[in-house]
Amino acid sequence: MNIRRTVLTLGKRARAELKGQRPLILWMTGLSGAGKSTIADRVEDKLWRCGHHTMVLDGDNLRFGLNKDLAFTDSDRVENIRRTAEVARLMLDAGLIVICSLISPFRRERTLARQLVGADEFLEVFVDTPLDECIRRDPKGLYARAIAGEIPNFTGLSSPYEPPDAPEIHLHTAVHDVDTLADHVLGELRRRGVIACLP
Amino acid sequence: MNIRRTVLTLGKRARAELKGQRPLILWMTGLSGAGKSTIADRVEDKLWRCGHHTMVLDGDNLRFGLNKDLAFTDSDRVENIRRTAEVARLMLDAGLIVICSLISPFRRERTLARQLVGADEFLEVFVDTPLDECIRRDPKGLYARAIAGEIPNFTGLSSPYEPPDAPEIHLHTAVHDVDTLADHVLGELRRRGVIACLP
Repeated sequence: MNIRRTVLTLGKRARAELKGQRPLILWMTGLSGAGKSTIADRVEDKLWRCGHHTMVLDGDNLRFGLNKDLAFTDSDRVENIRRTAEVARLMLDAGLIVICSLISPFRRERTLARQLVGADEFLEVFVDTPLDECIRRDPKGLYARAIAGEIPNFTGLSSPYEPPDAPEIHLHTAVHDVDTLADHVLGELRRRGVIACLP
Repeated sequence: MNIRRTVLTLGKRARAELKGQRPLILWMTGLSGAGKSTIADRVEDKLWRCGHHTMVLDGDNLRFGLNKDLAFTDSDRVENIRRTAEVARLMLDAGLIVICSLISPFRRERTLARQLVGADEFLEVFVDTPLDECIRRDPKGLYARAIAGEIPNFTGLSSPYEPPDAPEIHLHTAVHDVDTLADHVLGELRRRGVIACLP
């Protein structure tokens, strides 16, 4: 082992203090087309209007950069989530409220992501849209192609999705619109003392 | 290709505006023991005192998390730098001043890191300490072990270091102390209009 940890003068607390906030990871999980990115985007916009310092880590966008060497096999999905969780932790160290939006189909990897940080620094958000509804919406036309056999390892069809057992926040997208759902997330952050402003 | 870019409402500019700063990557390169981490730490501390929002990406620390699957072969060094550069770009998108501190021995990879972002968003900082001086200091005892043949692929000895051709900032650590060098970096940021405060 020829590496040692470098201890820095500034830590998470000092960086967060400057931003006047408590850093946190909001981890949004759900099927493709469930509405994760749309809700993440609205939540970030609302937090920004309250003066909060945020960053969105979007699974699809990361696959154009950091994770562009990864495919959709089970092992690559695991590595995809591992890297995203590590980056989220670094962003947390930077003092930010980090909104992760990625299918993250496996319970085990979501648990690993959670265990990287403190218990009060991670909230799992289940963007709960029934598979039938995702197939009906099919915003990117991916389900049609997956059903036609054009896309292998498609979550919900040819690859499993394991819903969270006890997510801190459970969003039912078939019942509420995006604005209501985003307000619900902010309300929960307020209730937990993470933010002060009203949604 | 079954992924599409998600367009977010908030961009780098909005996130940076909230912080009242221009986001930037300071990329510190140099031999092991050159003083990169020490200078990075001091620069961050000084920027924080000026109210600037920063994050340090330290090569050694990343190897305990995001890059813990990588060794010190040439190909793993390349992947190490690629991932660090991608994370730095994400931090830039978050509106931060990002200080990267890693040996990054190959010119080609430093160029790739630079090309990931805008021309005015990346400053290469050469932490220039002669090899003899690094061997003499040997703060972590690594050179002694590498010379004894205990550490393979050691930069400067059994693995090459390619010095920058035209770094934006050139720090001679054998001539100045860490405080003077950090002030020199801040002075350069001020001269370029990145920060307003005096070092």
